[in-house]
Amino acid sequence: MQRFGIRYRIRVLEGESLEKKALGIAYEQSVELPYDVISEEIRERIVGQLGTPTLLEDGRYELEIRYPVGNAAPEIVQFLNVLFGNVSLTPGVQVVGVEWESLNEILYGPKFGVEGIRSVLEQPKRPLSCTALKPMGFSSQQLADLAYEFAMGGIDIIKDDHGLADQSYAPFEERVTAITRSVERANEQTGRHSVYAPNITAGIQDLQYRMDFARAQGCGAVLYSPNLGGLEAMHVLAHESDGLPIMAHPAFSGSYVTHKEQGFSPAFMYGELYRALGADMSIYPNAGGRFSFSLEECLAINIACRASLPSYKTCFPTPGGGVQWKQIPDWAKKYGLDTIFLMGGSLYQHPEGIRVAAQTVRETLESLVDGV
Amino acid sequence: MQRFGIRYRIRVLEGESLEKKALGIAYEQSVELPYDVISEEIRERIVGQLGTPTLLEDGRYELEIRYPVGNAAPEIVQFLNVLFGNVSLTPGVQVVGVEWESLNEILYGPKFGVEGIRSVLEQPKRPLSCTALKPMGFSSQQLADLAYEFAMGGIDIIKDDHGLADQSYAPFEERVTAITRSVERANEQTGRHSVYAPNITAGIQDLQYRMDFARAQGCGAVLYSPNLGGLEAMHVLAHESDGLPIMAHPAFSGSYVTHKEQGFSPAFMYGELYRALGADMSIYPNAGGRFSFSLEECLAINIACRASLPSYKTCFPTPGGGVQWKQIPDWAKKYGLDTIFLMGGSLYQHPEGIRVAAQTVRETLESLVDGV
Repeated sequence: MQRFGIRYRIRVLEGESLEKKALGIAYEQSVELPYDVISEEIRERIVGQLGTPTLLEDGRYELEIRYPVGNAAPEIVQFLNVLFGNVSLTPGVQVVGVEWESLNEILYGPKFGVEGIRSVLEQPKRPLSCTALKPMGFSSQQLADLAYEFAMGGIDIIKDDHGLADQSYAPFEERVTAITRSVERANEQTGRHSVYAPNITAGIQDLQYRMDFARAQGCGAVLYSPNLGGLEAMHVLAHESDGLPIMAHPAFSGSYVTHKEQGFSPAFMYGELYRALGADMSIYPNAGGRFSFSLEECLAINIACRASLPSYKTCFPTPGGGVQWKQIPDWAKKYGLDTIFLMGGSLYQHPEGIRVAAQTVRETLESLVDGV
Repeated sequence: MQRFGIRYRIRVLEGESLEKKALGIAYEQSVELPYDVISEEIRERIVGQLGTPTLLEDGRYELEIRYPVGNAAPEIVQFLNVLFGNVSLTPGVQVVGVEWESLNEILYGPKFGVEGIRSVLEQPKRPLSCTALKPMGFSSQQLADLAYEFAMGGIDIIKDDHGLADQSYAPFEERVTAITRSVERANEQTGRHSVYAPNITAGIQDLQYRMDFARAQGCGAVLYSPNLGGLEAMHVLAHESDGLPIMAHPAFSGSYVTHKEQGFSPAFMYGELYRALGADMSIYPNAGGRFSFSLEECLAINIACRASLPSYKTCFPTPGGGVQWKQIPDWAKKYGLDTIFLMGGSLYQHPEGIRVAAQTVRETLESLVDGV
């Protein structure tokens, strides 16, 4: 029977033993019954099988448990349950990897990937830029005016702030229509290909409509927060017959990654899981910004996004939050060309206005192609 | 303009100040821009307003921030973003309460509530019992045979294990049909009203179908894991014109509550949030079981589930995980009559079989009505 592996990092707490804790996970995430009330046949056919543990430098153990694909198949939601259902409540258990190749009939990964995004934007090589339209409270026209300036300056991807939804001051349809026209108008003048990515995150009864509306308007991509709107829903959106590239936003996901020994490693969450679930671009809080990831964790996310996997396209790592435009050359040296730099506040604060800020960003990125 | 309050507990970390951290939350969860680039008008109309902080015994501060309802309205998903979008990535920030009354046009709470469930089960007063059909790997007929025994013994609510989805060994439709018939057959023989609650947690394209199928078969309730299938989707299911009572399961939710100073307090998550989102019954890991909640945390969940709110029905607290049938009288004394006791392993381990186990549970619960 086909199985897939989940890699855990486990802290053995006072009063626990590694073997008992690991077996506890293997049983909890499959049969959910004590050893003595299940048959030998069920134990062999259904229960997770423990691999060999490795002692890590921090005193934790890394261990793979292999579960039957049939415990999850044919559904993504049930895969998520096997991945981290009840064990999400167990202290000291962190998921750091999944053997995706065995799951490629359930999870398809990105539809466009790095190459697809580069092709849409006609930018074969350099890092890309992204900014967010805000603040919440602006009218659709005010946001469209901002988008025009950003596109005139040459930002590649102009996204809604993830907090723009369907509020009365900038309702979804009115906003998306106005901003799309603005960006088109700028592109006509510049000859470039800036793309607008509206936030389509919504309830299950509105989500598909918003994707369809964005596509009908001619948007080049969409923004979606999978931990708000649903992880599995992102995969549905990604693999529609004529879907748009998806930029995933980490809103509401932080609790899975802020505890260093419980939940998911940042690289697993934003590199592996979001990618497997169809994110073409994955936003994460950059080191040095107003959130708490280390440079090492960010580099690990980048590696996971771009790792070569037989069945999945790659995903564009999109560090954001606290990225200053002046620091782009430094970050590009650290992160490489296949990176999207998401900048908000620092462009709005530029003394000469956002068009000049955007232009500076574009020129900086263009200068990097041969220099990194 | 109408506002609603969110109550946070905040740990001020090294290098931070309370005022700066609290203002950071108020800005991050609304305009997401630095103070200096937004207008006075936006600051007054959109940004969260800080209440007066209280110093707690553990050195943290409790503080309310009041946000315009219009920042969230008219959508639940955007409410969740205002509640805990980006701030989910900020260490030392825990949400402990929401002023629901101001949000009752967005969130409706349970449709049935404690009284509705008691009426379905014709059990006006005593605590209720619940068990789970498992293990994963059993055929539909094997699970139906278990359900028959539990119903003959008199378990009130017989639910699927939350890991039973649409696996090949017990496909959803076949399983739900077989188990419903089993429980009906037992009820005809006993004259009681045991209810079967199938797990309908699924992807957005299958969810409504599973609810409809369960209702068409004559199920009395459903099981749903909101952190797997979608938080907002639970509210949609709950407020259909002829929906079934919903038992919420905490799978995949643990990371929000296992860190004691980040995420949500257990009482907020399983008492307040699940209830606001439409859970009629809320399963949580009981103290003393194989997970990590304290008795104090469990009592706080019960209080939140049952708290009198002008717009919401109450929710049945459903402690599970490690509840032993022998301990029911003790737990009933601690938790009171409006409790559903969820028992799995200890019934399966009963030396005389599960029907006798179920019968003992029922007799114990019946003896409690006047004794608690």
